[in-house]
Amino acid sequence: MRNEMISSILNELNGTSPDIEASAVISTDGLIIDSALPSSLDEDRMGAMSAAMLSLGDRTAAELTRGRLDQILIKGENGYVLMTQAGDEAVVTVLAKPKAKLGLIFLDVKRAAGGISDLL
Amino acid sequence: MRNEMISSILNELNGTSPDIEASAVISTDGLIIDSALPSSLDEDRMGAMSAAMLSLGDRTAAELTRGRLDQILIKGENGYVLMTQAGDEAVVTVLAKPKAKLGLIFLDVKRAAGGISDLL
Repeated sequence: MRNEMISSILNELNGTSPDIEASAVISTDGLIIDSALPSSLDEDRMGAMSAAMLSLGDRTAAELTRGRLDQILIKGENGYVLMTQAGDEAVVTVLAKPKAKLGLIFLDVKRAAGGISDLL
Repeated sequence: MRNEMISSILNELNGTSPDIEASAVISTDGLIIDSALPSSLDEDRMGAMSAAMLSLGDRTAAELTRGRLDQILIKGENGYVLMTQAGDEAVVTVLAKPKAKLGLIFLDVKRAAGGISDLL
């Protein structure tokens, strides 16, 4: 039941914008909780990179006096990676296209992370 | 002369918005090229965290098919860290307040990074 609710939040998130290519919920130690990915993307790779970025982002935020980590955005020439904390134990990672409307995606992912955090 | 021009770009950047608290130009191996920081912030810490984030962000962008790394944004409860590539050998790292207008800061930092890249 809980799994289905998380799945439905992820699928809804991918559906909110054609700019969102993939999304996943990942535990802070890098294990996949659920994902909605195209077949070209490897789940484990998404988990591993999310956990590594989250851990270093957390430390960077602390060392540079930014307080508790909330989100990390990586912009590459072929699109974005957005990682958003969903409570203390998980992160929602989303891949978006280069021309994505970032303001909307920030909002939608924040909302989805809130819903997932309530379920975990 | 070149140092003075980099200094002047950084000071101008800090002056464009009261939301920018600090800025630095850092070589990709983490050494400070120039900085405009308040005394509460340690230069070496800013250099070390920037180099570490840049290296992992680069790998994450590649592994998750986002292409060449352009920018990394970290949002904490007390503000932002924005890292922007300035050519192949340096990064401009900026600390901004929690209520900062991100769109403007992205633009201003991108412009400053372009200017600095031309000088290096």
